[in-house]
Amino acid sequence: MRRYVLPPFAAASINRVAWIVLALLFLSAVAARADSGAAPKYVFYFIGDGMAMPQRSAAEYYLAAKDGDGKPGVVKLAMDKMPVQGLTSTYSLNSIITDSGAAGTALATGFKTNNGAISVDKDKKPVATLAEMARDKGMKVGVVSSVSLDHATPACFYSHQASRNNYYEIALDVAKSGFDYFGGGGFKDPTGKKSKKEGDKPDALEVMKKAGYTVATDRKDIMAAKPGTKLVAINPELDHSKAMPYALDGDKKGLTLAEFTTKGISQLDNPKGFFLMVEGGKIDWACHANDALASIEDTLAFDAAVAEAVKFAQKHPNETLIVVTGDHECGGLTLGFAGTRYGNYYQYLKDQKVSFEDFSKKLAAYKKAHNVADAKFEDVVPMIKESFGLIVPTAADLEAMKQNPVKYSSSHTSPADPHGMYLRDYELDAVKAAFARSMKGEKEKSEDEMDYRAYGGYEPLAVTLTHILDNKAGIGWTSYSHTGVPVVTSAMGPGSQAFSGYYDNTDVAKKIMAAMGQKAVASN
Amino acid sequence: MRRYVLPPFAAASINRVAWIVLALLFLSAVAARADSGAAPKYVFYFIGDGMAMPQRSAAEYYLAAKDGDGKPGVVKLAMDKMPVQGLTSTYSLNSIITDSGAAGTALATGFKTNNGAISVDKDKKPVATLAEMARDKGMKVGVVSSVSLDHATPACFYSHQASRNNYYEIALDVAKSGFDYFGGGGFKDPTGKKSKKEGDKPDALEVMKKAGYTVATDRKDIMAAKPGTKLVAINPELDHSKAMPYALDGDKKGLTLAEFTTKGISQLDNPKGFFLMVEGGKIDWACHANDALASIEDTLAFDAAVAEAVKFAQKHPNETLIVVTGDHECGGLTLGFAGTRYGNYYQYLKDQKVSFEDFSKKLAAYKKAHNVADAKFEDVVPMIKESFGLIVPTAADLEAMKQNPVKYSSSHTSPADPHGMYLRDYELDAVKAAFARSMKGEKEKSEDEMDYRAYGGYEPLAVTLTHILDNKAGIGWTSYSHTGVPVVTSAMGPGSQAFSGYYDNTDVAKKIMAAMGQKAVASN
Repeated sequence: MRRYVLPPFAAASINRVAWIVLALLFLSAVAARADSGAAPKYVFYFIGDGMAMPQRSAAEYYLAAKDGDGKPGVVKLAMDKMPVQGLTSTYSLNSIITDSGAAGTALATGFKTNNGAISVDKDKKPVATLAEMARDKGMKVGVVSSVSLDHATPACFYSHQASRNNYYEIALDVAKSGFDYFGGGGFKDPTGKKSKKEGDKPDALEVMKKAGYTVATDRKDIMAAKPGTKLVAINPELDHSKAMPYALDGDKKGLTLAEFTTKGISQLDNPKGFFLMVEGGKIDWACHANDALASIEDTLAFDAAVAEAVKFAQKHPNETLIVVTGDHECGGLTLGFAGTRYGNYYQYLKDQKVSFEDFSKKLAAYKKAHNVADAKFEDVVPMIKESFGLIVPTAADLEAMKQNPVKYSSSHTSPADPHGMYLRDYELDAVKAAFARSMKGEKEKSEDEMDYRAYGGYEPLAVTLTHILDNKAGIGWTSYSHTGVPVVTSAMGPGSQAFSGYYDNTDVAKKIMAAMGQKAVASN
Repeated sequence: MRRYVLPPFAAASINRVAWIVLALLFLSAVAARADSGAAPKYVFYFIGDGMAMPQRSAAEYYLAAKDGDGKPGVVKLAMDKMPVQGLTSTYSLNSIITDSGAAGTALATGFKTNNGAISVDKDKKPVATLAEMARDKGMKVGVVSSVSLDHATPACFYSHQASRNNYYEIALDVAKSGFDYFGGGGFKDPTGKKSKKEGDKPDALEVMKKAGYTVATDRKDIMAAKPGTKLVAINPELDHSKAMPYALDGDKKGLTLAEFTTKGISQLDNPKGFFLMVEGGKIDWACHANDALASIEDTLAFDAAVAEAVKFAQKHPNETLIVVTGDHECGGLTLGFAGTRYGNYYQYLKDQKVSFEDFSKKLAAYKKAHNVADAKFEDVVPMIKESFGLIVPTAADLEAMKQNPVKYSSSHTSPADPHGMYLRDYELDAVKAAFARSMKGEKEKSEDEMDYRAYGGYEPLAVTLTHILDNKAGIGWTSYSHTGVPVVTSAMGPGSQAFSGYYDNTDVAKKIMAAMGQKAVASN
């Protein structure tokens, strides 16, 4: 057998070659791992309901104005600091403007469907959700929302219904899901009360308990739940829609969205990894009502939850994929207003102390105590000042404003000189008209077109005041519904590079599936 | 000397090792070349003035509705198909809402500056532009704009002025720049007419000629210019601001923005490469006036220019970097309206045949021929129908609309059943009031706040009609100025990966500098 004999320089080369090969192989391995290689062990999916670019930016400008040095700029949110940012179209199968059901279905399953559907396709056939795929892989699964847990967005991850309004059926699907953690709001119809055969149906909360879930409804019990056990954690403080309160209004007894997220992490963490969906649901509700600060504060609460996931990812780099998106824009929010031209005065918003909803409640109490005949605008003047910082001018003020309009313009915004917060004559007219309309006691959801355009079915005085305050800050609204403006998707961690570019909401689901090593669905 | 003896399998391994090394080295070289390696030979920089996400999406929805099958969706623009998409903040040094001077300075130089400045820093010190850096590297340089070439955005690439209003000084800087190609609009003040010492100053166009530029002002002369020669190509058809006409109004004698781009490519192509900036300037102007279709058609004309660059890049892959961005949002454009709720009817826009500007000209002619006393609304009814497709109802129509409001609602949009295009009673009232206001002959830029909010200083009847038509289509506006909504930046080619994420407009310039191998500027 012939033996190969090599000169010394060749041997040296072999050593060098071996080193280069090793180095290159190592680098490719690292690159593959960091991006398109191994499936992430931990997947966070954050959905800001009604949150597009304007909502995110409004929060960033507000933070800069609130705590800043007076210079224009942005204070970046955790989601906006992520290395990958993409754009996402949101239209549904039957409408440019999607509802949260069709959007949630797209984001959870990769299927386009009609407005109102909950993870069923256009033929009402159930389609598999990312959360179910994660469960079937052996990962633990959690679903968190600041609105009720049977609401469209969270429901799309564990339920399959032809209509988002099947609240009772959705609640029953919690137990069937076998998921490990549900946290946030409550259930709108746990006993199927709307049925004619009331009493025949089992209580969905009891069904959950029978299936092994602890249903905890106060902070102590929620916190006491042992990691790894099945938990339904319902916030102790809920509004009339079984949602958590607006972040702006504060939560005296309950948890924040960030706390529900960290509780989720501790419940779910295990060697096989987890999938956790967290929805900021009341960003949307505030935008429907055209209440900028309520929307901003809920966006900040949502971002604080995102920040908890980022903290977790820092402890588990290369194992944690975080995706943050919105399901659609809401309200036609823009960051400029005809009346303020090139100016912006976000610092005005600081004087708003409660959401439109809290104010509407106060006004409802006043209404209850007064007939139309004895209701006096003067009575609510202090409430307007306390709630929104807006000053109702006296006759003398109005005269002074006429003499010196510049002094009372929006550009005067220092706390020492709050003249911009005085209502101008035409604003005062609108506020008085809204008060009169509020007191009339008509049904709120009026069919009259101009009435709807003015108030959108909300408490007329409340929506008029947020419109005026937001306009003074330089913020505009065009709708009480969702709009067709695309949303932003942010991502970090293994697989995140795929979230660059401009793609459809169904692609967000498909990209997460791909990252998780799931076969992409053959969607419509 | 000891000799190393290797068994045969080892020799075989060496061969394999050598192949793997070669393959890996080749792949790394390709990857480096394709992304962060060699500086691109060809750099295209597209700036849509006033173009943010809503402007891009409006164009996409319009295309889908205009040519589509009636299903909701988007027809993707060339810029929106690019693999990398990022978000870009636009605030200036002294305002959340930037003007085009400060934005252009940021995009051209990487420096934040105050509104109104043209590539000078906050101390009014000139700062180097990307175009100058390219020139100094030996690349050929071109600047194209659909508005006048001395306007803020194009000026920021070749001029340095404390004020964007120094039109004459900016025009003089063309010759000084030594750039190779200027194309698009004309010059607002080439003779320095505004000076008291009129006549003392040289004509900027003559200065250009003396410096070796061919100044061509008709299609034949523009097309005849030899590649490699210095050319100032001014569109034969210009509006009163020396800008190219709105794409919607058509250009009978001139070139499109895409044609100015392809002419630029042929003028500039050479072995040392080129840098070409192309601005779509009238997207912004249409948005200031709240005219959706004029904005959409100019966005499409801009995108057609982008598509020419993409075609060029396909012939020169790995050598061509294309970056597309906007300088700010304008108009507070949103894709939803209170009155249309979850509906969108972009197909209505097809019936608009001229821009607000063309309509205003027609109305001005009518105004000139009639006194306030003999001006009759009936006279302009046909003009309203021809220009915007809006139908002024007769008394009988109004009665029918009261009887059957659904039939006349926005959801009836087929050409066979255009009932949605009838003005409703409250729309008719607004149109008649605007006509009366138009005929009064007051100065257009009124100081009255409510008048400004209604008409923004534009021809009252024109802006009222675009508001109504756009609202019927499901589109809203909140301002006649720019807004603080961030813009989208799209990129493809070598260096494009850097444009993922959310970053400042100054970073767009810095990223292009980095791709071009320029030292990043030490900006403020």
